[in-house]
Amino acid sequence: MTTPTNEYPAKGYAATSPESGLAPLDFTRRGLRKDDVLIDITHCGICHSDLHTARNDWGRTTYPIIPGHEITGTVAAIGEGVTKHKVGDRVGIGCIVDSCKECDLCTQGLEQYCKQGMVGTYGGTDRIDGSKTQGGYSDRIVCRDEFVIKVPDALSMEDAAPLLCAGITTYSPLRNWNIGPGSKVAVAGLGGLGHMGVKFAVAMGAEVTVLSRSESKRADAMALGAADLLITTDKAAMRAKTGYFDMVLNTIPVRHDVTPYLHLLKVDGAQVLVGMIDMMPEIHTGLLLGRKILTGSGIGGIEETQEMLDFCAEKGIKPDIEMIRMDEVNDAYDRMEASDVKYRFVIDMESLKQS
Amino acid sequence: MTTPTNEYPAKGYAATSPESGLAPLDFTRRGLRKDDVLIDITHCGICHSDLHTARNDWGRTTYPIIPGHEITGTVAAIGEGVTKHKVGDRVGIGCIVDSCKECDLCTQGLEQYCKQGMVGTYGGTDRIDGSKTQGGYSDRIVCRDEFVIKVPDALSMEDAAPLLCAGITTYSPLRNWNIGPGSKVAVAGLGGLGHMGVKFAVAMGAEVTVLSRSESKRADAMALGAADLLITTDKAAMRAKTGYFDMVLNTIPVRHDVTPYLHLLKVDGAQVLVGMIDMMPEIHTGLLLGRKILTGSGIGGIEETQEMLDFCAEKGIKPDIEMIRMDEVNDAYDRMEASDVKYRFVIDMESLKQS
Repeated sequence: MTTPTNEYPAKGYAATSPESGLAPLDFTRRGLRKDDVLIDITHCGICHSDLHTARNDWGRTTYPIIPGHEITGTVAAIGEGVTKHKVGDRVGIGCIVDSCKECDLCTQGLEQYCKQGMVGTYGGTDRIDGSKTQGGYSDRIVCRDEFVIKVPDALSMEDAAPLLCAGITTYSPLRNWNIGPGSKVAVAGLGGLGHMGVKFAVAMGAEVTVLSRSESKRADAMALGAADLLITTDKAAMRAKTGYFDMVLNTIPVRHDVTPYLHLLKVDGAQVLVGMIDMMPEIHTGLLLGRKILTGSGIGGIEETQEMLDFCAEKGIKPDIEMIRMDEVNDAYDRMEASDVKYRFVIDMESLKQS
Repeated sequence: MTTPTNEYPAKGYAATSPESGLAPLDFTRRGLRKDDVLIDITHCGICHSDLHTARNDWGRTTYPIIPGHEITGTVAAIGEGVTKHKVGDRVGIGCIVDSCKECDLCTQGLEQYCKQGMVGTYGGTDRIDGSKTQGGYSDRIVCRDEFVIKVPDALSMEDAAPLLCAGITTYSPLRNWNIGPGSKVAVAGLGGLGHMGVKFAVAMGAEVTVLSRSESKRADAMALGAADLLITTDKAAMRAKTGYFDMVLNTIPVRHDVTPYLHLLKVDGAQVLVGMIDMMPEIHTGLLLGRKILTGSGIGGIEETQEMLDFCAEKGIKPDIEMIRMDEVNDAYDRMEASDVKYRFVIDMESLKQS
């Protein structure tokens, strides 16, 4: 067992300004605390949040910033108090690296809503030393043991990576709203999140419909297991599905009017937003008065994230990914903005050693 | 048993244009169908919807219109197929006088969301002959047996009237969201709906807080059984209650920003709109992503309305009312718009005979 107390030199890809793009950066990871593990990163998925943060779209970024919160790798060292993992374990880290673990939300397994605030994997503030957290576009990371997830043997490291954000973000609301056999689920937005939403809802036994502005996505939707594609610009088709769905999983990541999707809900049906982080255009409350629910969901807790990975292993679910080298990340951002990826980029971190 | 087939002459108070105010009108009620009852109206509550409809605020009114959907009275005659009521019964009619009674929503007791559309008590279209329905500001009404509610002996006719809209509109969402002992409920808007919401939530065992822009409502809130008054303009007080409530029952009947109330909700807590029928100002979806629910509710079904009246009889709950004469209705509308009523006007229909 290795329990060094000194910092670890690390290599990463960082943005240094909103316009800089990402470029190599040498930095350090903290020495292991009693309950920390050191992970050699093998893969990291690319999330829309990475791009928004790198470019300071939300106005909260401080530079330099190393994005990445869909991290998989191997445990390289552990602190003396670590019990959950051992050296050599295949593991992952999602969007959370720490929380108080004591409030009533943490103890319910809802660390993402920790009353003291969860610590984000990048751009967060460490609870012990106040330093800024840096993400997974790097060769290694140090993380509190309890926030590290086990990657089941049946999942490859590259497939597991996107599940740690795109996966849990769609799995959690489907579970929370009790989706199962007999449920009718519509998924809006067929990207990194949406394609996982379709796969999960299908695996849970639901009848799944993909909502799209155009017919062009039909083959993709069917390939993911959807029963139907509903063209949102076809007024007659949309009217025919009024009051049809138990849930609309809305993964669209940009500002948009949610009204058309409210019409699709049954009484007591829920539209769950997981993508849009913006001001929502006005809606008419008359729609809600028909006992339609508008809500949202943010990632998931640690235990539920483990449950989701285990579910994927059991059901043979994996994301559709495109592997890239670390030095292709800036091009990948541009392509992601153009929706030119099916459906998630994953960085092979081996390429970082060569760059 | 009386089963006339001819129409009944009736007297009412009608608006004839958006600016006309209400004035006496002679009209007729349809002859009894097999499943109809004739009711001699004794009382009718005044709802904000009456005023909006009389003045065509929602752009859907056709004139002349006789408002009123908080109706109590006595059964005066019944059709030959009527089984639920008999002559002399103390009864009430709320906002619904008919629905298909066959769709899956009607058969679940959700007639207000009937897939063929519920028939409103006034301004609706009769399912059989296509005529326009006229409301309870009148001396008598004919209504399908199944949509007539029994008034329990323990409730006076004047107290029962406002329960048929203001009562059920607040009772139904409290039940739907499982409010009971241990629940923390906030009520926004202390009018006809809000004051009933406080009474119901207290009777169900919840800890109830009234939300108000000013301290002036404290004594009223406490008199209704509230545990606290929270001043919504006091930022520190509002912040102290962040994440505190299981439910915010929002009865405010005008366009407003619901953001401050979303902050007050626990994870999985629900803000239920029952008053605002308007475009809702933009909200930031980040609030919803914390698994906060925004929804609404419209009145309640027939069986639930009966349950609500029975609950009131059992628990000794009644609305705070101010009785008026029929010819005082125009003044009452002006006072209602100025929030100058605690908390519901009820018309003594005896006064109509004298006018």
